[in-house]
Amino acid sequence: MSSASTATISRLSTLDATFDQHLGALLDWEGVSDSAVQSRVDEILSDVKQRGDAAVIEATNRFDRLSVEGMEELRLKPEQLKQAFDNLPAEQRDALASAAERIRLYHERQKPTSWQYEEADGTVLGQQVTALDRAGIYVPGGKAAYPSSVLMNAIPAHVAGVREIVMVVPTPDGVVNELVLAAAHLAGVDYVFTIGGAQAIAAMAYGTETVPRVDKIVGPGNIYVATAKRAVFGQVGIDMIAGPSEILVVSDGQTDPDWLAMDLFSQAEHDEDAQAILVSWDSAHLDAVAASIERLLPTLDREGIVRESLSRRGALILCQDKADAIAMINRIAPEHLELSVEAPDTWLGEVRHAGAIFMGRYTAEALGDYCAGPNHVLPTSGTARFSSPLGVYDFQKRSSIIHCSSEGASELGKVASVLARGESLTAHARSAEYRIRN
Amino acid sequence: MSSASTATISRLSTLDATFDQHLGALLDWEGVSDSAVQSRVDEILSDVKQRGDAAVIEATNRFDRLSVEGMEELRLKPEQLKQAFDNLPAEQRDALASAAERIRLYHERQKPTSWQYEEADGTVLGQQVTALDRAGIYVPGGKAAYPSSVLMNAIPAHVAGVREIVMVVPTPDGVVNELVLAAAHLAGVDYVFTIGGAQAIAAMAYGTETVPRVDKIVGPGNIYVATAKRAVFGQVGIDMIAGPSEILVVSDGQTDPDWLAMDLFSQAEHDEDAQAILVSWDSAHLDAVAASIERLLPTLDREGIVRESLSRRGALILCQDKADAIAMINRIAPEHLELSVEAPDTWLGEVRHAGAIFMGRYTAEALGDYCAGPNHVLPTSGTARFSSPLGVYDFQKRSSIIHCSSEGASELGKVASVLARGESLTAHARSAEYRIRN
Repeated sequence: MSSASTATISRLSTLDATFDQHLGALLDWEGVSDSAVQSRVDEILSDVKQRGDAAVIEATNRFDRLSVEGMEELRLKPEQLKQAFDNLPAEQRDALASAAERIRLYHERQKPTSWQYEEADGTVLGQQVTALDRAGIYVPGGKAAYPSSVLMNAIPAHVAGVREIVMVVPTPDGVVNELVLAAAHLAGVDYVFTIGGAQAIAAMAYGTETVPRVDKIVGPGNIYVATAKRAVFGQVGIDMIAGPSEILVVSDGQTDPDWLAMDLFSQAEHDEDAQAILVSWDSAHLDAVAASIERLLPTLDREGIVRESLSRRGALILCQDKADAIAMINRIAPEHLELSVEAPDTWLGEVRHAGAIFMGRYTAEALGDYCAGPNHVLPTSGTARFSSPLGVYDFQKRSSIIHCSSEGASELGKVASVLARGESLTAHARSAEYRIRN
Repeated sequence: MSSASTATISRLSTLDATFDQHLGALLDWEGVSDSAVQSRVDEILSDVKQRGDAAVIEATNRFDRLSVEGMEELRLKPEQLKQAFDNLPAEQRDALASAAERIRLYHERQKPTSWQYEEADGTVLGQQVTALDRAGIYVPGGKAAYPSSVLMNAIPAHVAGVREIVMVVPTPDGVVNELVLAAAHLAGVDYVFTIGGAQAIAAMAYGTETVPRVDKIVGPGNIYVATAKRAVFGQVGIDMIAGPSEILVVSDGQTDPDWLAMDLFSQAEHDEDAQAILVSWDSAHLDAVAASIERLLPTLDREGIVRESLSRRGALILCQDKADAIAMINRIAPEHLELSVEAPDTWLGEVRHAGAIFMGRYTAEALGDYCAGPNHVLPTSGTARFSSPLGVYDFQKRSSIIHCSSEGASELGKVASVLARGESLTAHARSAEYRIRN
């Protein structure tokens, strides 16, 4: 195909003999931590588990280049959060509040209800939904500190009915992000500690004298954070371990090429590992988007990151038709899917795997990233095959309910007795048999 | 308190000065794999990833003491499963079919629906629910091979709409469990491979020439299986890593002490690490249950395992009142909670954490283990604080849907633009701004 070696972004066609191989290589991403990272993380976890606050303080001073003496210096008071919110320019404060309200409204729709049903003999079966007692939110510090992520993580926890929300955010060299604090205020976070890394994960998973133990930890982080989350999984719940962000845009050729170029850039500007792929069956349209990319690239604030990301992991792919595009969607299982096509509704039933689906030419991913309402924490690297956007359900759990009537227990007891004896679990059988009526 | 050193099971009181400490020690359980296990598992995973079937065959011959030459010898054909089912005694066949039908009916109630709503400006938001393409079920071999577990794992996957279900079950020394095969037939499993251990987890997570790659792996296993599941988490979904099974029984003193003793035994007979705890505010009742335990113990088939389990991890606990009992429930977050009390409905609203709740004197846990309908795969070791019974939702995932009208995109674009610029993500801002109407 038309692959100019000087172009910023690869051009592929699904008809290329090496297409499958090439696509596989582009998609390949493994966030494996090496054994050096693993053993450093293990050390930090066990140190915090044993020594609590003292270990957290030491690690924080070392890694974030601070010199605090007590945990009280690593805790932000509610007044500080409110102050940060009040100090924002009105435009930012209003935008943040508007986003928070839309996120809340969407997530309210996710709330499941408990249910029960009664059988003819009076036996009742059901499912009771309850919230976690305490959730922990990890917010990265430094350049990747996003107030929108605070809203996206904390609001679903609130809507779910979580009693207490603990947030950790490192402040390397003491640099505090006021927008992040403002978002924490708006989202109703109960505790904020300015700690990060594996030590913050350990503090929330095990609890310390100061940091309350949480039931589940959510939020993205670097390789130390991801490794620590994997290690404490089971002690506490965790969300998915996030890979780099990615988008798959499908265009029918009728969307403004500049719009599509900017949509790809908005993904690529996250970091050099981010992935932006455009698919269309209109070859001339792909040429036009490629031209828009070259023309608009020099106007970007993050031109360097975008160039690197597009050249390493981006692609413009020529497919044959709609069916071919849908096969690609389901193979990639993208975090973000933009259906920049006429009548996107007719595509929906065939999309089996995608984190979030942005439908039509007007629905830029950026709208969903900030304020449309659905969550922007989404399954990456093909994990949409088996996982879901962060949501209210991540902060709740279900208990099964079984309430047998005397008659019901007698009938079920006969079945259970046979099966338990088939498994040689005779105390199970006898426990059931006690409930069989004579 | 009255703790006779010769008794089979500890007696505690919530008023004991050392109660918290003692209870903590009883509950403590960590299924940590040591670094030797870790590195053996890592070797197997990487071998199967690289060499596929050949590595699976070698590991299976070694660990299960077989001498097969090709994968076709490690695959059971649908006819063999059907044969196993047809060959069962009628009583077992009927009991298995009855249990399967009740499990199916309960799980049908868990099916969520996709939803959408439209805003005033025509913007549509929603959530689309889809099933996994392929699920993998691990079934332990040897003495812990339970046909009921095959039903409990495979039926929710079927109800969820999973396209293909792959089951693995090791056959050490070539010993096949016919009841397990019969259950696989009944539950509609598509592929059965007689492989186990880390090699089976690797085969399902990465796929081999013969074993199809799955999207999620569920089911219990030994420490090698648990370690392998933790390692492949992210490549595929996994369910919780299960600890030993446990029950907390609360009695108001009015349930037959023999019934309660047998209920405790039915938990303790699983294995030496299983945990059975009874709580009551009626001291004489606890004495009566203790007497029942001593009298009935010698009549048990698995007396040795039960004695070991009760003496190591069991307890009869005297509490003060209902509130005290409820505090204990929420602290322990038991896998199985038996409310052997009058009017258990009045307790339900206060139970925040439990895997499954067995209500009233007739609802023995054994009924739920086999045939009541709800799932018997439940969160252990206090993980009911943040996780749920296995269910239909474990085999489905959700995609967010965002479909902005031209007017909606224009309004949202303004908010997104402000927030994106606040995060210095200007390509995000410009992508949103393209959609703002002039």
